[in-house]
Amino acid sequence: MKDFTFYNPARIIFGKNSLDMLGDNMHHLGKRVLLHYGMASIKKHGIYEDVMNRLNALNIEVYELGGVKANPEFDLVAQGIKMCKEHAIEGILAVGGGSVIDSAKGIAAGVLYAGNIEEAYVDNLNIDDALPIGCVLTIPAAGSESSASSVVSVNNATLKRSIKGTCLIPRFAIINPAYFVSLRSDQAAAGISDIFAHLLERYFTNTEHVDYTDRLLEATMRTIIHYGPYVVNHLDDIDAWSEIGFAGTLAHNGLLGSGREEDWASHRIEHELTALYHIPHGAGLAIVFPAWMKHVYPENKDRFVQFAQRVFDVDYATHEVDKIIEEGISRYERFLKSMFLPTRLHEAGILNDDSDIMIERMYYKRSESFGNFKKLYAEDVYKIFKYAK
Amino acid sequence: MKDFTFYNPARIIFGKNSLDMLGDNMHHLGKRVLLHYGMASIKKHGIYEDVMNRLNALNIEVYELGGVKANPEFDLVAQGIKMCKEHAIEGILAVGGGSVIDSAKGIAAGVLYAGNIEEAYVDNLNIDDALPIGCVLTIPAAGSESSASSVVSVNNATLKRSIKGTCLIPRFAIINPAYFVSLRSDQAAAGISDIFAHLLERYFTNTEHVDYTDRLLEATMRTIIHYGPYVVNHLDDIDAWSEIGFAGTLAHNGLLGSGREEDWASHRIEHELTALYHIPHGAGLAIVFPAWMKHVYPENKDRFVQFAQRVFDVDYATHEVDKIIEEGISRYERFLKSMFLPTRLHEAGILNDDSDIMIERMYYKRSESFGNFKKLYAEDVYKIFKYAK
Repeated sequence: MKDFTFYNPARIIFGKNSLDMLGDNMHHLGKRVLLHYGMASIKKHGIYEDVMNRLNALNIEVYELGGVKANPEFDLVAQGIKMCKEHAIEGILAVGGGSVIDSAKGIAAGVLYAGNIEEAYVDNLNIDDALPIGCVLTIPAAGSESSASSVVSVNNATLKRSIKGTCLIPRFAIINPAYFVSLRSDQAAAGISDIFAHLLERYFTNTEHVDYTDRLLEATMRTIIHYGPYVVNHLDDIDAWSEIGFAGTLAHNGLLGSGREEDWASHRIEHELTALYHIPHGAGLAIVFPAWMKHVYPENKDRFVQFAQRVFDVDYATHEVDKIIEEGISRYERFLKSMFLPTRLHEAGILNDDSDIMIERMYYKRSESFGNFKKLYAEDVYKIFKYAK
Repeated sequence: MKDFTFYNPARIIFGKNSLDMLGDNMHHLGKRVLLHYGMASIKKHGIYEDVMNRLNALNIEVYELGGVKANPEFDLVAQGIKMCKEHAIEGILAVGGGSVIDSAKGIAAGVLYAGNIEEAYVDNLNIDDALPIGCVLTIPAAGSESSASSVVSVNNATLKRSIKGTCLIPRFAIINPAYFVSLRSDQAAAGISDIFAHLLERYFTNTEHVDYTDRLLEATMRTIIHYGPYVVNHLDDIDAWSEIGFAGTLAHNGLLGSGREEDWASHRIEHELTALYHIPHGAGLAIVFPAWMKHVYPENKDRFVQFAQRVFDVDYATHEVDKIIEEGISRYERFLKSMFLPTRLHEAGILNDDSDIMIERMYYKRSESFGNFKKLYAEDVYKIFKYAK
């Protein structure tokens, strides 16, 4: 186990009546608030109205900025920063999924940032100060509701890059699993794939003596394996969504990576798929992660055996190590396919080979390798794209 | 799952070099600080000196109050409150185990409390304000390093009672597993029993649809079952202590009870054993919890079957429900005995039957029943004491 500090002061307000707690928490955001949201869905499902009624009852001055798209773009962040400065806005309430919350974080940081916040994203900088953020979560997936990071498409939407900092952790996150029943099955599946990937990025480590966090990660993965394919087929089951929702938050609040070197190579590779082809992040991860596994597993077979055994119940016999590992990866792919996700590029309609473009962008203004489980140089990523074909 | 709010802003600073972070965190406690500790052990093992050197380097005005005993008593809390008021102390640094930290919390709350803080303990009140607390943990057991509660012996040490409140959560907890190697095996065993009991109090619930937290609790229990008896026999294994230490903190920071009705009857019963016989809290829990299980299991057999299966790997066959449950409880007892803990009163040298006294104190100034898995009236507690004989 590595030395670590875990600090996450987000208030997780969870449950069917959690929006009733909004009023008690708005003081964290001040009296002049930017309400940030996505497209039409929060209006269609009555969430917008429920939120506005509560804000109006508190006499909060609300400025609205809607229109966040999946894979949020910097243009809207820039617009939000301008609005906040013009109206001396004190805090931001994000109502939506990870894209909306990530966009809100970009605005919150940008308002107080001395330099150019778009460049901070390009350079993946740590940020020290931001306006306070609160959120009402409508999609369990990204974990942004209690994470310390934000991912936004920058550089004319050619790069998906991130900023990090404790100041980006929302002061409160209202998580009402009843909101999740209005998701489509493909949105649900992509979200579940994203949650699972957040666990895998932490699980695949070469750090030794991390048994307790191994078990917590396995417990979370098994919960997702149990409930993920189920909710995709039973979108109205609030109890099942509650399990997914809480697991999704803990998957990415930092706790489960405590004391471990994390990987994050698959996320970096996937960001290029999303930037180029505009496929959902969770679908991209369903393609990249199995391919990454096939390329890197010889690096630490013991860990892949443990994954196969403890997460996917593959039987163990010492003379069959490679078979056990292959079966583990294959069961992960079957889990993804059972939610109708693509696990190969062509299944997502991607038939061109754009490896060159994506690999160039992936390393743009960055060091010659990335990832920790195995350091990936450009030639490794080419191989991973081959497995993904 | 019940609606819930989870909020825990403690900074968990973990690892072999974690004391190096003390300087960066002392600003949370101000410039005039009470250093609170126990008996001789922190001086013997050099921890006192390491802490003092760091405080002196920061020019912090340090006032010392040592002498906290296991099962801390209110007299010392009162003395601490007086010192803090006299010297306008701004924060408290607790260096020790759960007793020291609980005593520090009592002082921190007492300084700012308008009424009589001893009565607040007797009445188990929620507290709104306290001086900031930081801690350097030397025994993994009580979880007080990031919990929102404090247990102290009050009323001339006849009652062990608690106060609660977010303000009692330490601002930072430095957890260095290298400190744990100096524990005796009986201290280690008692601490491990206490950690396990914190998990059981949350595990045994009748709340439905709590699968994810079930799995997190099971993961934590399995970690303790794996490493607990091992460290008792290998007290110098820092890697094993790291697993126990982190599990002990998460067992009681509130997270694993999220959305669940918790029980806490066994703790209430045990507190009377400690108050009357001065046995270690963890040893008392090793006696009370198996007895509680034997009395309450008919209330919800499914949950006890799950415990037997998933925590202690008891094979399942539907026609043998009671046998499975008995085997689960029996394996829990064997786990405790493997750490040389008593699981019956007489094994702890308690031969008198003082049930009457303890039961009278247990209900003193309180409602006629307690516990949630099964409501316990006095006649129930008599039966539990019989099982414990």
